[in-house]
Amino acid sequence: MFEEPIEELIEQFSKFPGIGKKSAQRMVFYLLKEPGPRIDALIGALDSVRKNVALCHRCFNYAAGELCSICADPRRDHTIICVVESPQDILAIEKTAAYRGVYHVLGGALNPIEGIGPEQLRTKELSDRVVSADVKEVIIATNPNVEGEQTAMFLASQLRPLGVRVTRLASGLPVGADLEYADELTLGRALEWRRDI
Amino acid sequence: MFEEPIEELIEQFSKFPGIGKKSAQRMVFYLLKEPGPRIDALIGALDSVRKNVALCHRCFNYAAGELCSICADPRRDHTIICVVESPQDILAIEKTAAYRGVYHVLGGALNPIEGIGPEQLRTKELSDRVVSADVKEVIIATNPNVEGEQTAMFLASQLRPLGVRVTRLASGLPVGADLEYADELTLGRALEWRRDI
Repeated sequence: MFEEPIEELIEQFSKFPGIGKKSAQRMVFYLLKEPGPRIDALIGALDSVRKNVALCHRCFNYAAGELCSICADPRRDHTIICVVESPQDILAIEKTAAYRGVYHVLGGALNPIEGIGPEQLRTKELSDRVVSADVKEVIIATNPNVEGEQTAMFLASQLRPLGVRVTRLASGLPVGADLEYADELTLGRALEWRRDI
Repeated sequence: MFEEPIEELIEQFSKFPGIGKKSAQRMVFYLLKEPGPRIDALIGALDSVRKNVALCHRCFNYAAGELCSICADPRRDHTIICVVESPQDILAIEKTAAYRGVYHVLGGALNPIEGIGPEQLRTKELSDRVVSADVKEVIIATNPNVEGEQTAMFLASQLRPLGVRVTRLASGLPVGADLEYADELTLGRALEWRRDI
């Protein structure tokens, strides 16, 4: 229907998660309204990410230099490491403003069915950090699902012998939730993890 | 929150219509999962559009060469021109598969309040086409709103003296509509434009 370069760009935009054919078309037509400046700006930003963004050498978060801005920040507490599956999880935790330690990005969770074992994740790098630096606590913040729990158990078994405190994010009822509508697994977990008040 | 090049790319993606901050973030993280191939492919497609897509010299639709694929197609009826406001409108009409003529993109509609007069649109180019080529009919397919109607009236007054048939897309009840729920303007128009059966 469209000229070939336009079709190709619609195709590229359609690959993004949550972007359908219609949205991709609208995006391309937006660019075509002022193709010079708009495409230049977008290519510039993409090229800068391609050239300047790599993985932090220490925690494997995205970084514009050798270290990400969190690892490079001397005001953060480098004796506490929060282990997450992906860089997006760091964003979620940073938004809470409740954490002042540093991170470690595993790059996923253990999943034997999909062939993801400890070697496919950055578990060795985590142990090395715990051994070589003065780390007091490792908070395991993998997702509270089957893979995340397995990963947490595995990491705990690896890290505890190193003499570090290993903790897990609390699991239970979401703040503001309604007991009546909570799923049984969450409610069961909330009972199991109950604490004195 | 993010490294600067990532923030800048999120910013760029957020400029697209219908793309909010969250969607833009998701798009950037999608690219960052495999930055090399994904960003290369996207930059390639953007660059090809920037380099190869211009306006058709005849109808001002988007074109990969001198002429768009419709103007370059000898099987189309070049004696009928359908006048639209934007290239997106061509897409809508092509989808009907009910039209075999060619197009003319005005680039908008008359809007005195926003300072859009006949000189800001490609009205002169349309008259020139009608004069220089063997054109039998001009179908005015501007939007059925105030600006589109004004534009249609203006174009008709310009083109009729050139001895060409000038028509307007029918306006009335949408197919499948319910009389009870039709707005009064549309129903009024449907009465006014009624035809013998």
